[in-house]
Amino acid sequence: MRHSALPHHDGSGLYVSTQTPKLGERVTVRLRVPGSYPKLNKVIVRSNPDHEPHWDTAWRVGSAQGWDWWQAEITVVNPRHRYRWMLVHDDANSGTSPHIAWVNQAGLHAGEVLDTADFSLITQAPPPEWLTTSVMYQIFPDRFSPSSAQPERAAPAWAQPAQWDDPVDPVMPARVQQFYGGDLDGITDRLEHLQDLGISTIYLTPFFPGASNHRYDASSFTTVDPHLGGEESLVRLVESAHHLGMKVIGDLTTNHSGDRHEWFQRALEDPDSPERSFYYFSETSSEPDYESWLGTSTLPKFNWASQALREAFIEGPHCVVAKWLKPPFNLDGWRIDVANMTGRLRDIDLNTEVRTILRRTMQEVKPDSVLLAESTNDATADLTGDAWHGAMTYPCFTRPLWSWLSAPSHIPYCTAEGAEETIPWFFGQPSGGIPAGTAQDFAAAVDRFSAPIPWRVRLGDMHALNTHDTARFAQNAAPGTVPVAVALQMTLPGLPTLFAGDEFALTGADGELSRTPLPWQRLDDPEVRERIRLYRELIALRQNHQALQSGSMRWLHRDENSIAFIRESSEESVLIFASGPGSQDHTVVLPHGVLSETQSHERLWGTAELAFTEDGLGIQASGPSCSLWSVPGVVVPGQ
Amino acid sequence: MRHSALPHHDGSGLYVSTQTPKLGERVTVRLRVPGSYPKLNKVIVRSNPDHEPHWDTAWRVGSAQGWDWWQAEITVVNPRHRYRWMLVHDDANSGTSPHIAWVNQAGLHAGEVLDTADFSLITQAPPPEWLTTSVMYQIFPDRFSPSSAQPERAAPAWAQPAQWDDPVDPVMPARVQQFYGGDLDGITDRLEHLQDLGISTIYLTPFFPGASNHRYDASSFTTVDPHLGGEESLVRLVESAHHLGMKVIGDLTTNHSGDRHEWFQRALEDPDSPERSFYYFSETSSEPDYESWLGTSTLPKFNWASQALREAFIEGPHCVVAKWLKPPFNLDGWRIDVANMTGRLRDIDLNTEVRTILRRTMQEVKPDSVLLAESTNDATADLTGDAWHGAMTYPCFTRPLWSWLSAPSHIPYCTAEGAEETIPWFFGQPSGGIPAGTAQDFAAAVDRFSAPIPWRVRLGDMHALNTHDTARFAQNAAPGTVPVAVALQMTLPGLPTLFAGDEFALTGADGELSRTPLPWQRLDDPEVRERIRLYRELIALRQNHQALQSGSMRWLHRDENSIAFIRESSEESVLIFASGPGSQDHTVVLPHGVLSETQSHERLWGTAELAFTEDGLGIQASGPSCSLWSVPGVVVPGQ
Repeated sequence: MRHSALPHHDGSGLYVSTQTPKLGERVTVRLRVPGSYPKLNKVIVRSNPDHEPHWDTAWRVGSAQGWDWWQAEITVVNPRHRYRWMLVHDDANSGTSPHIAWVNQAGLHAGEVLDTADFSLITQAPPPEWLTTSVMYQIFPDRFSPSSAQPERAAPAWAQPAQWDDPVDPVMPARVQQFYGGDLDGITDRLEHLQDLGISTIYLTPFFPGASNHRYDASSFTTVDPHLGGEESLVRLVESAHHLGMKVIGDLTTNHSGDRHEWFQRALEDPDSPERSFYYFSETSSEPDYESWLGTSTLPKFNWASQALREAFIEGPHCVVAKWLKPPFNLDGWRIDVANMTGRLRDIDLNTEVRTILRRTMQEVKPDSVLLAESTNDATADLTGDAWHGAMTYPCFTRPLWSWLSAPSHIPYCTAEGAEETIPWFFGQPSGGIPAGTAQDFAAAVDRFSAPIPWRVRLGDMHALNTHDTARFAQNAAPGTVPVAVALQMTLPGLPTLFAGDEFALTGADGELSRTPLPWQRLDDPEVRERIRLYRELIALRQNHQALQSGSMRWLHRDENSIAFIRESSEESVLIFASGPGSQDHTVVLPHGVLSETQSHERLWGTAELAFTEDGLGIQASGPSCSLWSVPGVVVPGQ
Repeated sequence: MRHSALPHHDGSGLYVSTQTPKLGERVTVRLRVPGSYPKLNKVIVRSNPDHEPHWDTAWRVGSAQGWDWWQAEITVVNPRHRYRWMLVHDDANSGTSPHIAWVNQAGLHAGEVLDTADFSLITQAPPPEWLTTSVMYQIFPDRFSPSSAQPERAAPAWAQPAQWDDPVDPVMPARVQQFYGGDLDGITDRLEHLQDLGISTIYLTPFFPGASNHRYDASSFTTVDPHLGGEESLVRLVESAHHLGMKVIGDLTTNHSGDRHEWFQRALEDPDSPERSFYYFSETSSEPDYESWLGTSTLPKFNWASQALREAFIEGPHCVVAKWLKPPFNLDGWRIDVANMTGRLRDIDLNTEVRTILRRTMQEVKPDSVLLAESTNDATADLTGDAWHGAMTYPCFTRPLWSWLSAPSHIPYCTAEGAEETIPWFFGQPSGGIPAGTAQDFAAAVDRFSAPIPWRVRLGDMHALNTHDTARFAQNAAPGTVPVAVALQMTLPGLPTLFAGDEFALTGADGELSRTPLPWQRLDDPEVRERIRLYRELIALRQNHQALQSGSMRWLHRDENSIAFIRESSEESVLIFASGPGSQDHTVVLPHGVLSETQSHERLWGTAELAFTEDGLGIQASGPSCSLWSVPGVVVPGQ
């Protein structure tokens, strides 16, 4: 199966002259057209300032490596300045109608396209550079590690104390009460483990006091849970991490608090308190009646129309959001829980206001901080570039990867209600198992969910195989596919994110059963050593090859069982081939222009073979596999 | 070429239990699955209340006419309540992964889909029923008809008077100054002509005084141009139209006024006047310096941050928008000029506020009025159901229809600057002519630009072959395609809109050259009689068959040269086949389940032949053609 190379543009440095455009600035944009493409009469950029088309004609700047390059200058008019390319074919007979093609983030099209997949330039301050170069590691504090010098702490009153090697009990109420006693100093103790893996950013699920082991039911946003070691432990952790060159971000619930939260308690006690306005109380009911997260009364929902709430929580230098970014805590950013529902209730939608105020505050207090949004389904409507640097979201990577690489599996597991289930858990979707999907379906999903969002946000979208809320990928992975999945996580545009324990080859049939305390005693097990080596190698590749972090991305091949793509920059490009469990032998031929026999290349990882055939550059591999090659960088004429 | 029938749902009455859902209401939605489709294990509706998925399981209600029907109840949570269908296939071997399909407004998909093409229930008050049953007729007052009893009126000072049979002069300044003297009483005189065609709604381009023949540069919004006959003429026109059962809507510029506008003049004269806030003046410049439409200083842009402007123009019972809807004028609604740019300037975007306030005012003053938005490119971002009932927009119908049905044409014409051009005008796009397109491309464009908008808004989107701003379709139509185009205009979901003169077979190479004064003396020319007969017949079909107005829509066939689709209701369905200029002979076979040999059918229009073959229902036609058949309505089990 052979695919032709297509005209290409994306938001990376090869194609756009600046990653930090300003309103009114002139920006150079470039389009690359393969020599095999029909002759072009004109290439034009269509911008859409104030929602009215504007046309800038491009000129051909030259050819290199079998590609023609066109270039145009456009003026940035809106904070999200949308544009796309119009290709006017040079149809030989003047008696025929011109053939027009459009290039947008969804690819090449023969007919007119929607604005939603336009490329865009974003004038909002860019995400910090360290985000793009990060590999992130998610820690659920209760389950990571108890500190070696842990003082004698009694478990909280609501908790069911557990020993570190007790199995996780997924049945309510143990599900949320089982308490293993991992703490922040425990994380500080283990930073070398993270450094050894190559991790650059730690993401902590909530460290605020709560009445559950997950702490998403915060009772305060102004203290660190004493059972985690309190504020001093957080200061020690962040200082130690910074000392090792790692960043640390926290986790905030902006959709709701716990019902034990000091704000909610004051609101309950005193209907005239300012905190009353923080929530949606029904003032007609005699019993306390209020809005909550999916009807869970222990998680009362915030009312973001309240200016007092905004000032307490997200606005100005003294709010919660600011407090933890400043000394002595110096957090490097936030992951926002249930960001998708935040500020939204029936006919109210304050989401845009909340996220832009929140980001503005962070920008003022600590510009070098990151802001990530949990939005586990289609997050693209909110990923406009106005606030979120990226999302913890699953349809753009995680779910279609599972569909491609999972084995049909019906391992029994236990639900929250204590029932035994044999249908593999699938992200809360009632699909009766992990939906079937091919390599092609995976690539199509990557495209579909990337097309509506700005390039810079795509680079910030979390690429996780699993999280604290999901089953482990390894639970259902088809034999031999874990290295494929990890390699794709490290090489596709996005923010690779491990959930602590991935490197221990942990399994887990749902989000609860995946919260296994880390089995530190197994560090020398052959399986664990092998998995750690896998992560270490692939993370190092990602860290050492800039093209894998912020390089352009083009598909070179996709079929039922395999994909090939290339991450490109002017210094170096990296070619990636991945095959799944569908068949044993994979032989593919790449389109012309990737690599010629006279160019150098080096296999960085994997076992697939490159071969120059009469048809072009071939790849041969067997079984599930992933291979990476370093190939020459892209020559941009006139640069 | 044979296409399989696919599972189907849309927003029409066959599939949704109410067209006027309220917040909190339970609504029944139905899905129709062809008997030939793989066996289903489950059918589930995914809603997305407050941006978090919610699942409602459907049940199978029965079979009829070869279709299985599934039904679910969903609760309307948001003003735009989005939903889609998840089909869980009943895969025979429990060892395999389940195959999941999704049905949304873009069709059937194997992988997860974006929220943007979800179906939606809209709780905003619905558009008036008369909009859905309308055929609209656009009048550019200066060019329609001078009144028979016209008093001696001097042409305005800025004008170049022209005789009715003078050719249009497209060169500036005559382009905007040439003044033929059509007036409102002239329209009243000719209402029988419109009634004879079957027109139900008249859309008048601006009747406010201005300094151009198009009057989009209004000098006041509170008077009718005396050269059109003043307020009394408008009252007479609307009264007469209402008497004949016709509606009349006006045209407002909310993006800008003329620089002679009384508001702008006061703003210029007195920087302390309230009107100063209506516009974007730069207060740092010594010369008057202000924002205007695309830099045209005669069209200063409104600043919608001004509350005083809102109150004068769009808010409350005494504003401009309200004034003309109330007695004695009794207009039936507005078309809003440059709605796409309204309230948008660089980092400002007040568009949603402006349109929702505007609609709220209309709802208060005259609920039975309609609001249409000019947004000539991708309008879908603004067509959310919150305000606009539909758009004057071209990519969803007009442009792809031109691409399919136009002949390559290089007739010379004269530009505004007086230069001669031979490239056919194409809606301001620098495409070097009318882009080539097929029947399939046309159908794909209809789908692409319909998928993101609510069904009710789709029914309100104006389907014009051309407007006062464009060349005439007939100018470049391939031989024999005008009846095809008109038939599609009357049968696809949308609001058929003629530009006055279409029925006179007028041509015109650009928006200016199309503004020919109507040649009333040619009413008896054979060509004109034939064209009028064409419109009369097809409009009557549209008016007499409810399925063509608000019936469901399914594609039955599409290839390079032809399309077939069906508009369905429980009473009657109408089957439509259209072929273009691409080839002489068209033989297509429709999927099963459209019509069986034992069912009655009647050809309503056209010459194509239906034939029952071994393969199924075949259609044979030659050359460009369009045919309509009445077929039995849809049986919904359990109804």
